[in-house]
Amino acid sequence: MARALHRNRSLPHARYLQLATVRADGRPANRTVVFRGFLDGTNVLRIVTDRRSQKADQIGHSPWGEACWYFPSSREQFRLAGALTLIGAEAADPQQTLRQQAWQALSEAARCQFTWPEPGAPRQSEPFSQTAPADPPVSFCLLLLDPDHVDHLELRGDPQDRSRYWQTDAGDWQTARVNP
Amino acid sequence: MARALHRNRSLPHARYLQLATVRADGRPANRTVVFRGFLDGTNVLRIVTDRRSQKADQIGHSPWGEACWYFPSSREQFRLAGALTLIGAEAADPQQTLRQQAWQALSEAARCQFTWPEPGAPRQSEPFSQTAPADPPVSFCLLLLDPDHVDHLELRGDPQDRSRYWQTDAGDWQTARVNP
Repeated sequence: MARALHRNRSLPHARYLQLATVRADGRPANRTVVFRGFLDGTNVLRIVTDRRSQKADQIGHSPWGEACWYFPSSREQFRLAGALTLIGAEAADPQQTLRQQAWQALSEAARCQFTWPEPGAPRQSEPFSQTAPADPPVSFCLLLLDPDHVDHLELRGDPQDRSRYWQTDAGDWQTARVNP
Repeated sequence: MARALHRNRSLPHARYLQLATVRADGRPANRTVVFRGFLDGTNVLRIVTDRRSQKADQIGHSPWGEACWYFPSSREQFRLAGALTLIGAEAADPQQTLRQQAWQALSEAARCQFTWPEPGAPRQSEPFSQTAPADPPVSFCLLLLDPDHVDHLELRGDPQDRSRYWQTDAGDWQTARVNP
């Protein structure tokens, strides 16, 4: 993953990945999110989201996600499946500190969005604020994806190269090269 | 959609989108697929897939999908949710004709993959064929996504522009501009 991020660092949208969740009615949902780095020293992906968004509601019903991350420059795909954890204003430490750190790392433009009217509700004409508070509002959540299965496909090569990685119940990782 | 495709036509990976489905155990799955055009005169997206792939199995359990399609050049996202239909070798006309047409439209390189060993199984060392039959093998399926909900987000603009489109039971489309 670190190598793919480095190879694709010139593309801002290389930090965009697609996160699938399951809706309360059992249908899948899928949207682009921004990768905000790994939790220090772990494989856990950091994402931020709005408490009022559909995905926050979906995670309450089913805490599982699969991220699909395609890197155009190196033509490789990572599929990262695992548990999702939503960390909101009510969380205690040490999680609350992680949420505060994620807020501090956001740009002013990204922060403003959490002060805006409810996402997905009928469009309001009132001005959308261009300033954000210093502390995270209640709408701001840190979202963690802790992968337990990874599928890595490299399109370069004929046939392509594909490997699976998965975490055992004991916590260690196993790997297998598979047919593309 | 047609306008977004045109604006992004110089990027080969603008035809790559991420398709979410639901696994038999209720967890989401997500992978990149290639857009193969619309069914003539409809909003139905054409995709091809291997009968032996996980997604074909998942669609047997839950025929719902959501595609997330991000266009880097125009910085816009379409989320397309709807029913998935898998059309295999056993399908009757008129669906079988659609499957045959999809096969004819594939490149030789894309066709070869349907003759390869089972996708996702332990990697085999035997040569992977570089030639394909004229007629589609049993592994080849046409996959149709018929959207009934669309969410269109344009990142350009501050605040961003977001609209929803959905199909009523009567079959007509309604739309609403919503908060980003």
